[in-house]
Amino acid sequence: MAVGNLDMPVMYPVKGVRIGITEAAIRYKNRRDLTVFEIAPGAMVSAVFTRNSYCAAPVLLCRDHLGKATPRYLVINTGNANAGTGAVGMENAVASCRALAGLTNVAIEQVLPFSTGVIGEHLPVDRLAAALPAALAKLDENAWADAASGIMTTDTRPKGASERVSVGGHTFTVTGISKGAGMIRPNMATMLGYVATDAAVAQPVLDALLHSAVNQSFNRITIDGDTSTNDSCVLIASGAAGNPVIASASGELFTALQGAVHRVFARLAQLIVRDGEGATKFMTVRVEEGADTEECCDVAYSIAHSPLVKTAFFASDPNWGRIVAAIGNAGLEALDVSRVRVSLNDVCIVDNGGRAPAYTEEQGAAVMKQEEITIRVCLGRGTASDTVYTCDFSYDYVKINADYRS
Amino acid sequence: MAVGNLDMPVMYPVKGVRIGITEAAIRYKNRRDLTVFEIAPGAMVSAVFTRNSYCAAPVLLCRDHLGKATPRYLVINTGNANAGTGAVGMENAVASCRALAGLTNVAIEQVLPFSTGVIGEHLPVDRLAAALPAALAKLDENAWADAASGIMTTDTRPKGASERVSVGGHTFTVTGISKGAGMIRPNMATMLGYVATDAAVAQPVLDALLHSAVNQSFNRITIDGDTSTNDSCVLIASGAAGNPVIASASGELFTALQGAVHRVFARLAQLIVRDGEGATKFMTVRVEEGADTEECCDVAYSIAHSPLVKTAFFASDPNWGRIVAAIGNAGLEALDVSRVRVSLNDVCIVDNGGRAPAYTEEQGAAVMKQEEITIRVCLGRGTASDTVYTCDFSYDYVKINADYRS
Repeated sequence: MAVGNLDMPVMYPVKGVRIGITEAAIRYKNRRDLTVFEIAPGAMVSAVFTRNSYCAAPVLLCRDHLGKATPRYLVINTGNANAGTGAVGMENAVASCRALAGLTNVAIEQVLPFSTGVIGEHLPVDRLAAALPAALAKLDENAWADAASGIMTTDTRPKGASERVSVGGHTFTVTGISKGAGMIRPNMATMLGYVATDAAVAQPVLDALLHSAVNQSFNRITIDGDTSTNDSCVLIASGAAGNPVIASASGELFTALQGAVHRVFARLAQLIVRDGEGATKFMTVRVEEGADTEECCDVAYSIAHSPLVKTAFFASDPNWGRIVAAIGNAGLEALDVSRVRVSLNDVCIVDNGGRAPAYTEEQGAAVMKQEEITIRVCLGRGTASDTVYTCDFSYDYVKINADYRS
Repeated sequence: MAVGNLDMPVMYPVKGVRIGITEAAIRYKNRRDLTVFEIAPGAMVSAVFTRNSYCAAPVLLCRDHLGKATPRYLVINTGNANAGTGAVGMENAVASCRALAGLTNVAIEQVLPFSTGVIGEHLPVDRLAAALPAALAKLDENAWADAASGIMTTDTRPKGASERVSVGGHTFTVTGISKGAGMIRPNMATMLGYVATDAAVAQPVLDALLHSAVNQSFNRITIDGDTSTNDSCVLIASGAAGNPVIASASGELFTALQGAVHRVFARLAQLIVRDGEGATKFMTVRVEEGADTEECCDVAYSIAHSPLVKTAFFASDPNWGRIVAAIGNAGLEALDVSRVRVSLNDVCIVDNGGRAPAYTEEQGAAVMKQEEITIRVCLGRGTASDTVYTCDFSYDYVKINADYRS
């Protein structure tokens, strides 16, 4: 049911980053569910995590380890989120890191753990640890596409993006993978996203780059409005490209790298929406002429979260009354609805607080037949704008989520 | 698909209030879609309306008229919301009031208009006006049950509640009706609710009584989180009971009346959830031990709006991980998840941040088979509590809302 082209592109390797994937039977047998990233010494690593108060044990442990050391390894399992698991969950997360640290002769704080899958079950840490040697034996710079498969849960397609950009005599590679299809309204990051570049970047610049990229990508998508307990996103800069270290957020090296990183993040985030549970439509909700970015986002999310809007899009019904109701429901102070305009792709449907005079249902129906639709809202009260990406709400969303776990 | 007992009770007439219902072919022929309330002179009337910025023309006009006169008539149509209709919509709302005022020799400001149905279509005010004499000819004190049918849209069942209470030598009647099944997250009132009592009540006391009753009833339910453009709720006090006017919010008369009004409102609001689009489960979300009421409501709505929680309930799956994720997603500052407890009916499922030691999936499955389930969350950080009512999220919700309008 994925919408549009989700094909895996050429995934350029990133020197300084190797990946090994294996089967650990975390939840199911004969499924690649364990992935290890090895990061070369001297690389910089930045990460952001969910703001859900019930965040998983591995999220808590990642935050702790990042404060103490620069990571050398990531260990990622699917099939089990290790969330809602209390003190035992934390012990299991620590045990995963200890096992990998022991096999690789690094400090335990140099290992970051990530889990995704069912909430509330205890992680089978013995099976995970037993599979680590097999993952390490497979470490390879060219395993990004396999890793994209290895971190999937309800995803129907592996998700990857990769770019090379040349600037000032240097060539930077930016390659990344993501996963997620449900429980998607990231707040700081998505379920899981891993992006690496071979550029040499100073830690504060890398942190800022990650935050700006996430804010325009994973923090601008929603499938069902449910922020996960396990959202985590990592950006690695190995430095293997040999460029002078990018130590400030300016200059041609930074600008070129920033462009590539933002494009890779945007693609990875939008792939999650395109593969949203039960999705049949990819919807871009663009809000313009707002007083500030925050109110643009409020309006965009009010539309993107409305079950009535999402079911209308599933039905290809240009039921614009539900869109204006969602705009009105966004809580904006003193919104003058007579100034609001709404378009579907190039068709203006609402003007002056009511249906646009030239609009016909046939025009609306023609737009709604398409798989990719932009809802454009002009608020008429400022110059700010923002964009959120979402998908429709179908029978299959209910089916997938009523069946999951069974 | 309605959940539980929704049978229409004995609907006691309220002296001073007569109701006439007829067919006006607003959207469909052969369907009772026009209802007129006649309110005796001297009655007090209080009303609350949606906070949706895109509120409908009749909502704007009601607010205007209430500021100028005491209402004598209500005119209510279904099939068309007269929302998102711009200046023409306001002209049509005025024309409806003018037609009824002309037929009844009252000032136009003494008529309040209400519309519900499809958003964005122009109200066929000629057909509405042409049907008013038939509605007036049928005015009857015993038409409450018929009126409950006359205001339905996607409702599968008419909704009514009625009580008599005797106190201090007086008997008060409180009778009301409501409608609504989708686009339900009232914010001040529900789609449409009309309640009358024969008690004599001073206007400020009636206003306060309406607000307190709505806050514990229509403002505590959600089906899909979509606040409508047309929510309106009216409370009439005809004074026909002949009691000394209740002029303060104290004393045995007030207390008895308040109890009956609150019970009628609570029943009317919960009936909307029981008849929620596609509903198969009636869920009470009770949050206790909060720092204040607001955070209790935030947690309750975060659970009640989560598509993942709602689809799990549809599947009768005790997937408590989704409940704790929704709690963590409510945005509470410094929530200590190790203090949070969660129960389904009498079964404790979460304790100390993880699964309760004594909990078994069999216990959870047994509770989930029931039609009516209470999710009880204890936050462990205060003494406030609050309750929200909602329903599950089924294939039929998608079907109804993907088909509506077609």
